[in-house]
Amino acid sequence: MSENQKTILSFKDKSVEIHRDGPTVMIGERINPTGRKVVLAALKEGDFEMVRQDAIKQVEAGATVLDVNAGVPGADEVALLSQVMQEVMSVVDVPLCIDTANPQALEAALKLYEGKALINSVNGEEKSLETVLPIAKEYGAAIIGLCMDDDGIPATPELRLKVAEKLIERAAKYGIPVEDVVIDPLAMTMGADHTAGLTTLKTIELIVAEFGVNITMGASNISFGMPDRKYLNSTYMAVAIHTGLTCPITNPLVTEINTAVLATDLSLGKDEYGMRWIKAFRKRKKAQE
Amino acid sequence: MSENQKTILSFKDKSVEIHRDGPTVMIGERINPTGRKVVLAALKEGDFEMVRQDAIKQVEAGATVLDVNAGVPGADEVALLSQVMQEVMSVVDVPLCIDTANPQALEAALKLYEGKALINSVNGEEKSLETVLPIAKEYGAAIIGLCMDDDGIPATPELRLKVAEKLIERAAKYGIPVEDVVIDPLAMTMGADHTAGLTTLKTIELIVAEFGVNITMGASNISFGMPDRKYLNSTYMAVAIHTGLTCPITNPLVTEINTAVLATDLSLGKDEYGMRWIKAFRKRKKAQE
Repeated sequence: MSENQKTILSFKDKSVEIHRDGPTVMIGERINPTGRKVVLAALKEGDFEMVRQDAIKQVEAGATVLDVNAGVPGADEVALLSQVMQEVMSVVDVPLCIDTANPQALEAALKLYEGKALINSVNGEEKSLETVLPIAKEYGAAIIGLCMDDDGIPATPELRLKVAEKLIERAAKYGIPVEDVVIDPLAMTMGADHTAGLTTLKTIELIVAEFGVNITMGASNISFGMPDRKYLNSTYMAVAIHTGLTCPITNPLVTEINTAVLATDLSLGKDEYGMRWIKAFRKRKKAQE
Repeated sequence: MSENQKTILSFKDKSVEIHRDGPTVMIGERINPTGRKVVLAALKEGDFEMVRQDAIKQVEAGATVLDVNAGVPGADEVALLSQVMQEVMSVVDVPLCIDTANPQALEAALKLYEGKALINSVNGEEKSLETVLPIAKEYGAAIIGLCMDDDGIPATPELRLKVAEKLIERAAKYGIPVEDVVIDPLAMTMGADHTAGLTTLKTIELIVAEFGVNITMGASNISFGMPDRKYLNSTYMAVAIHTGLTCPITNPLVTEINTAVLATDLSLGKDEYGMRWIKAFRKRKKAQE
């Protein structure tokens, strides 16, 4: 068993620690036009009110890091991502996870960011490694590494572990320490393969045992094509955290998901006196009033 | 690691297998007047309609074993438990878990039961061992063994493991095989001690590693005194199943709990093609129409 790594993200004078012994860090996923037509339309028209509201609401609901994605087809992502970042930073002061496949947009975003950001993402493809890792190093950012490479997404946990190893080794060559590499084991849909969830859990187990790194995941893929997704997602979230997931990319506004994260922390003895659970309950109650 | 044990319960020609590699077995907890004033009043008046309805509804909701408790203060439990058993057996054909601290009531109930029942419960107290184990042996029943003894409920997982060991050894002396001992690690309330949930999980881990026995638990204790209990209970259920719980005593009529059990099985690759998940969803939808 490897020692658990600690990833420290920051924004200005605020920092967030991601560590397996601490509370689960929710990375809010809402600032993302993908699949959200209203947000997409607003962004196209230069209306950022919804982005600001999504930022505020997610932080109120317990997200301590926010993912920021501005992938609008046809738009200039370099300008748009920077603009969205500015809007988010004008209303909340949590560290950001910069979510783009465009290196220019990534660099522009990192340039205007004050602190240590998380980059979403690099993967095991040669092109990705060579493009993203130098940028991460230059701006002192942490990175999310996806368990896929030039051959696609490996089918077995053992092969995904190999990709994680490659990501960590290559990052190290660029001077990025292992604690700044957060691995995404990739969750495939159980609708297509009912052992897909288990494969991801086993991948987490192997990677944590070998490297002790932090683990992230966009856990809603798992339920794609299945009915009653929120129940499936929230349960999978609990089991994945129990396995080693430390910073899920998720929607904290869904009560079932949010409570699953907090209840897992409490179940694992990581919520002293249950204070976070009780506080979150009061917030939910107040929000319903 | 010990090999996983298989507990087989039966009622007439129907049998249910409890095994860590198979689906989680939900033992329906509803046929119990404790804390249910309406049921208590009905039983006092000899009205068993509610008992029959509780039996039918729980089986429809996916319980494959039913716990039967007839502890009505002031009533003749020997007669009442037998009567309640008869009522249940007249409407459903699942194995029963006979839930009583009264040895006479237990024997009377076992006498009229056709098949292999589960007894709820024996514990590590000398008096309990000497009273319940011979009855279990005589009627060929399986037993639930609680991790407590003459000194109360041990505070640490290691000490609870010792009680489990004692229960298994003493059962063996009476000729009850290890696979017929189902251990309840005991879940205490996290409201009083925020590490209580973790203590129970660690107890499960130790007992499963050492004996491979099946594990049961009444998981709703865990949230006593806390707000939003159903979310806490359902998450704890998922994490506990992931740890080794195989046959929770629970309320299958609570959607959050029921889905947590099924979603955990699916997450762990134990629901082929997700068919149980989809079937349960259809049932819930139909019930809502």
